[in-house]
Amino acid sequence: MLPGSYFDDLKVGDVKLTPRVTVTEGHILAYAGVAGDFSPIHMDAVYAQTTEFGGRIAHGLMGLSLTDGLKVQSATFKDGIALSWSWVFKQPIRIGDTLQARIRITEARVSKSMPHMGVVVMAIDLVNQHDQIVQTGEHGLMVPRRPEALEGGASA
Amino acid sequence: MLPGSYFDDLKVGDVKLTPRVTVTEGHILAYAGVAGDFSPIHMDAVYAQTTEFGGRIAHGLMGLSLTDGLKVQSATFKDGIALSWSWVFKQPIRIGDTLQARIRITEARVSKSMPHMGVVVMAIDLVNQHDQIVQTGEHGLMVPRRPEALEGGASA
Amino acid sequence: MLPGSYFDDLKVGDVKLTPRVTVTEGHILAYAGVAGDFSPIHMDAVYAQTTEFGGRIAHGLMGLSLTDGLKVQSATFKDGIALSWSWVFKQPIRIGDTLQARIRITEARVSKSMPHMGVVVMAIDLVNQHDQIVQTGEHGLMVPRRPEALEGGASA
Amino acid sequence: MLPGSYFDDLKVGDVKLTPRVTVTEGHILAYAGVAGDFSPIHMDAVYAQTTEFGGRIAHGLMGLSLTDGLKVQSATFKDGIALSWSWVFKQPIRIGDTLQARIRITEARVSKSMPHMGVVVMAIDLVNQHDQIVQTGEHGLMVPRRPEALEGGASA
Amino acid sequence: MLPGSYFDDLKVGDVKLTPRVTVTEGHILAYAGVAGDFSPIHMDAVYAQTTEFGGRIAHGLMGLSLTDGLKVQSATFKDGIALSWSWVFKQPIRIGDTLQARIRITEARVSKSMPHMGVVVMAIDLVNQHDQIVQTGEHGLMVPRRPEALEGGASA
Amino acid sequence: MLPGSYFDDLKVGDVKLTPRVTVTEGHILAYAGVAGDFSPIHMDAVYAQTTEFGGRIAHGLMGLSLTDGLKVQSATFKDGIALSWSWVFKQPIRIGDTLQARIRITEARVSKSMPHMGVVVMAIDLVNQHDQIVQTGEHGLMVPRRPEALEGGASA
Repeated sequence: MLPGSYFDDLKVGDVKLTPRVTVTEGHILAYAGVAGDFSPIHMDAVYAQTTEFGGRIAHGLMGLSLTDGLKVQSATFKDGIALSWSWVFKQPIRIGDTLQARIRITEARVSKSMPHMGVVVMAIDLVNQHDQIVQTGEHGLMVPRRPEALEGGASA
Repeated sequence: MLPGSYFDDLKVGDVKLTPRVTVTEGHILAYAGVAGDFSPIHMDAVYAQTTEFGGRIAHGLMGLSLTDGLKVQSATFKDGIALSWSWVFKQPIRIGDTLQARIRITEARVSKSMPHMGVVVMAIDLVNQHDQIVQTGEHGLMVPRRPEALEGGASA
Repeated sequence: MLPGSYFDDLKVGDVKLTPRVTVTEGHILAYAGVAGDFSPIHMDAVYAQTTEFGGRIAHGLMGLSLTDGLKVQSATFKDGIALSWSWVFKQPIRIGDTLQARIRITEARVSKSMPHMGVVVMAIDLVNQHDQIVQTGEHGLMVPRRPEALEGGASA
Repeated sequence: MLPGSYFDDLKVGDVKLTPRVTVTEGHILAYAGVAGDFSPIHMDAVYAQTTEFGGRIAHGLMGLSLTDGLKVQSATFKDGIALSWSWVFKQPIRIGDTLQARIRITEARVSKSMPHMGVVVMAIDLVNQHDQIVQTGEHGLMVPRRPEALEGGASA
Repeated sequence: MLPGSYFDDLKVGDVKLTPRVTVTEGHILAYAGVAGDFSPIHMDAVYAQTTEFGGRIAHGLMGLSLTDGLKVQSATFKDGIALSWSWVFKQPIRIGDTLQARIRITEARVSKSMPHMGVVVMAIDLVNQHDQIVQTGEHGLMVPRRPEALEGGASA
Repeated sequence: MLPGSYFDDLKVGDVKLTPRVTVTEGHILAYAGVAGDFSPIHMDAVYAQTTEFGGRIAHGLMGLSLTDGLKVQSATFKDGIALSWSWVFKQPIRIGDTLQARIRITEARVSKSMPHMGVVVMAIDLVNQHDQIVQTGEHGLMVPRRPEALEGGASA
């Protein structure tokens, strides 16, 4: 299992700062190659210079992928099962930006359908090196309950 | 510019089936390497066999990344600017699954802040080879308006 | 099927400009890793500075691979089957160059062996951001015929 | 410099068998990600099963890229400068095929414009594990002359 | 900083089992592409079948790279600085093997040259799904000391 | 088989300089993605600037992987089987560094357990473009014996 907390060790209001990652040209090429998205704003520097962004930017959803990866690297949760994301793109991510996610737990309840799991909802901001929120949203995750908490059969 | 339609050529109710992509082990390794997410459910076959999934599954957000890439490959829109995603994970994506996105435009209006762009909202299902909806949600995208439509200054 | 034209919608003299791609260090590393070519002119900056090129250059055939990929991204043809390439390297491709292919159809005839396909021959130039032709040649491609055109059994 | 022969050590009729490479799903994904070509015949197993090929095949030009990489791995030539390729696709390359190139020198002359280099022309077949020629053609390459051969100023 | 223990929280005899990773064809291709090693035993299935291994095997040093990566994923140490490895290859790693590292601390002392760091020596086995030790050796790592432990100036 | 020497053609004291490789950002991302090591000193430019290194550095073991790859590219040995490495990290490897390995054979004896192979021990330095030894150590390798040398049955 991954290092990280069981559902029963988390509570609403908990805040976690993840590790950071610096976005490079290589990230854009590798992400384009998985997603199959070679849009000019990501791959064509000549075009990108003519846009309001003034240069190539990262795929918006690569920001979300990095956010989720940083969440895992932060060892905040034992192996979870993702339920949902609701996500808004606010600022472009540029080559050389260093990103960090700020996670705040907003809801935590035992799952009705899977009582050995808890449902955690969190508000997440993806922040760059200038302390700008570049992407933001809400994420739902199922997190395993502490085995001892389950033995009595009662939900927390 | 990408091949695809201007905002003015799209209307509510339009439906598009994208190309498909078969998910391979290599997708999972490459996605893990960009996102930095090596969770056992994706990388550890011994662990994955013990779970309810019975084997390794793709990262949930790789499904979203593929959805967006298939959208671009479908040449549905001229180069857009992504605004938001609201996305729910319903079924696991397994190695060997072949995925396709079904896009239906649910809303289309001229942008107030950027009148040379239109805001398009679409409902998207990501469907596997068994015709199961594995992921589903809503996506907001800014799409450029047809230059001729702008000349008179009126919004459609 | 890919977006793009059927054979019957193409004619000799048609010209297409593809999307563009900016070549990065990451392209060279990724291409070397597929092709298995780690020649010093691509991988060793110290050596490359001593050559007539004055620095590292891309693998010549990566230029051809990008040309073909840009052709697909341009949505010029429905899914074709490649027959042949005849290709000449004229100028080096440097890191940071932005490339575009110019495609001109020079021949189009119904295939004798596969009458539901047409054979298209095209002259292609790969052009950099200084409008220099860096690579050039000829490409033969089989393109599917429009289903309606086939029904009467006559070839166009 | 790469291990391999100088121009002056090569002669018309020389034949070389390169190392071999087994083509995997990962090659196709990685090549697609560099070239930007996600055509269904390479990426969509459901579609590919309906074609005459009966399954996914490798990008034709990946075969050429592998041919050139195998040439470099064979240490046949000191660091050369590619001039041209003329190449024909004869059979599909399938996942799991093991490929080898057979190189035969057909022409060798001192370069007029760059007398410290020789021009070598070779006929190359790319052969699979069933001894079928899957791709074939001709390649022109500039190869450095042996320094001693240059000292007298005479061309071989 | 990475999640994990400070030097002062570790002691000789501590044992840690890391997460696991399943080795895929894609790992071999990606590792070959970084290291530049396309030896036939890794890349050529036809050749590999004729060897004592009976099929393709992973690069030996990829086993060491995975070992080190699993160590980091185990969140055993705060960000360390690697000093040395002494490593022996005992069994081949095959495609499909699932690997785990077993780490045992054998030595721990405050660094003389960098008193805010501790030197940790550990014995590591890399074990496959059949509980065979495939690779084994010793690793030296500098680990940061707990800030409070430093304040008094005394070394533990 | 790989180009390179049989055991019987090697002798103690032989020295070989390998080709070189320039380390790029892409190497770090690709290596991180295989090894699963996203430690901040490699991936987080903001953090790395605050360290004694003053910026991001390559994974130490990537230096060893490159050393081994350069060894293979140098065509020094026929296909060998790696036995062991003993390796020390002396200086960081920075983005843009160009590395070369210097190999000196220090021991060569016929294998007792596998008499058709020889055991070669070599001292290897990995050197950067400033002629600094960044990593150094010893490597044991089994190298095939020349078929003719085996016929008489005597070991060299």
